[in-house]
Amino acid sequence: MKKIILFLAITLVFVDGIYSQTPEHKLKEMKIELPPVGQPIANYVHVIRTGNLLFLAGKGPSDSKGVFITGKVGKDLTLEEGQQAARLTAINQLAVLKAELGSLTKIKRIVKVLGMVNCEADFKDHPTVINGFSDLMVEVFGEKGKHARSAVGMCSLPRNMAVEIELIVEVE
Amino acid sequence: MKKIILFLAITLVFVDGIYSQTPEHKLKEMKIELPPVGQPIANYVHVIRTGNLLFLAGKGPSDSKGVFITGKVGKDLTLEEGQQAARLTAINQLAVLKAELGSLTKIKRIVKVLGMVNCEADFKDHPTVINGFSDLMVEVFGEKGKHARSAVGMCSLPRNMAVEIELIVEVE
Amino acid sequence: MKKIILFLAITLVFVDGIYSQTPEHKLKEMKIELPPVGQPIANYVHVIRTGNLLFLAGKGPSDSKGVFITGKVGKDLTLEEGQQAARLTAINQLAVLKAELGSLTKIKRIVKVLGMVNCEADFKDHPTVINGFSDLMVEVFGEKGKHARSAVGMCSLPRNMAVEIELIVEVE
Repeated sequence: MKKIILFLAITLVFVDGIYSQTPEHKLKEMKIELPPVGQPIANYVHVIRTGNLLFLAGKGPSDSKGVFITGKVGKDLTLEEGQQAARLTAINQLAVLKAELGSLTKIKRIVKVLGMVNCEADFKDHPTVINGFSDLMVEVFGEKGKHARSAVGMCSLPRNMAVEIELIVEVE
Repeated sequence: MKKIILFLAITLVFVDGIYSQTPEHKLKEMKIELPPVGQPIANYVHVIRTGNLLFLAGKGPSDSKGVFITGKVGKDLTLEEGQQAARLTAINQLAVLKAELGSLTKIKRIVKVLGMVNCEADFKDHPTVINGFSDLMVEVFGEKGKHARSAVGMCSLPRNMAVEIELIVEVE
Repeated sequence: MKKIILFLAITLVFVDGIYSQTPEHKLKEMKIELPPVGQPIANYVHVIRTGNLLFLAGKGPSDSKGVFITGKVGKDLTLEEGQQAARLTAINQLAVLKAELGSLTKIKRIVKVLGMVNCEADFKDHPTVINGFSDLMVEVFGEKGKHARSAVGMCSLPRNMAVEIELIVEVE
């Protein structure tokens, strides 16, 4: 009987551990530190809330020093480097969300993503590039991180950044 | 007196026929069969609902076997072929809506469309191409099908598909 | 005592003048006249309202005679001419909002802007171009005019117009 109780107790702690894991815990586990949110590079703001929706401005792959990953994916950058740029952009957008909301647990759903890849006319692998963004969102938020998405090719982007990604998020 | 009653009865049946015609009836009349909805080609979902709004992922002109119409409109494809690609994309998005809602009668309004045309730098007829999508929506939904729209030129699209179109839909 | 009352009265009138200044007053002060709203150039409408949100169709820099500023910014047009095109597009979108709402005072917030610049592969100054749009919105609406934004490069736009800009607006 004691063994059964012990087993149940351990199971409960384990299950609790899975389900109570906040996005912030997940980020820590993945060794991702959110950077400070920089100033927009022109006359706009990072995010606007209307009702339960947050509309985020397009952001790109800047590192903690504000240096952007630049170049055209498939030409100046490999597919993997493009994915890394999209992943870095996801981290920057999470930083915006964290600054806006205080806690990422307030996020009910990543709703819609527009992933724009800086590339040439013959590039075809936009979905693979933007998976760098989408995969991170699903890792951090689980089911809540799954979103509707378009991944498309732009002839150019500000500062020649490799990707620019905007999104819509639903909050509680 | 009998004639008047007969006339009224016929009129009622006729009027009823016009106003009770569902989008599904209209599709049947147009001999359009909605294809099964395939898997997204990357880590995302076809549609997310938030409140009364559905945000649909960008889709392209794939046929019932999953083969895409590819190429740049105005170069590899004629304007008419581009329009057909946009029309096929509309059918694919209707299939997503049907799968999500069960019945297309739940649609209150096609709200906003972003129509992206795979083309070269000197292409100018994006609105004509995307009309292939918009015309079908208006045929199927009437006034409810009329939407706000942007039609623009992309340097490239996934798999070299001819168009990619995303939309926002309001439901009851 | 009379002087104090006079001073207070003048101050009140002055303060009132600042805070009660409607967007329409501001436009008049800036000597901007809103043009009549033309017909959409294809099968779509200028704006759809859903709940408290207005989704506006993408528009471009057409003058009062319907003539568009055309060409690629950074090649056919200077950066300043691109900015002017974006500013003109803002005026055209304000005309759409005025026609839809009757009064611009009903606007609670400019929520989200997608600014698309017609340009070549090596163009990098999209934010500067789209500031022509954003600056005008902030001038006319103050804090309410500040929005989330993406500014990106398109390989081509309808009629070779210099910019196309769509937006989402929250109303009371």
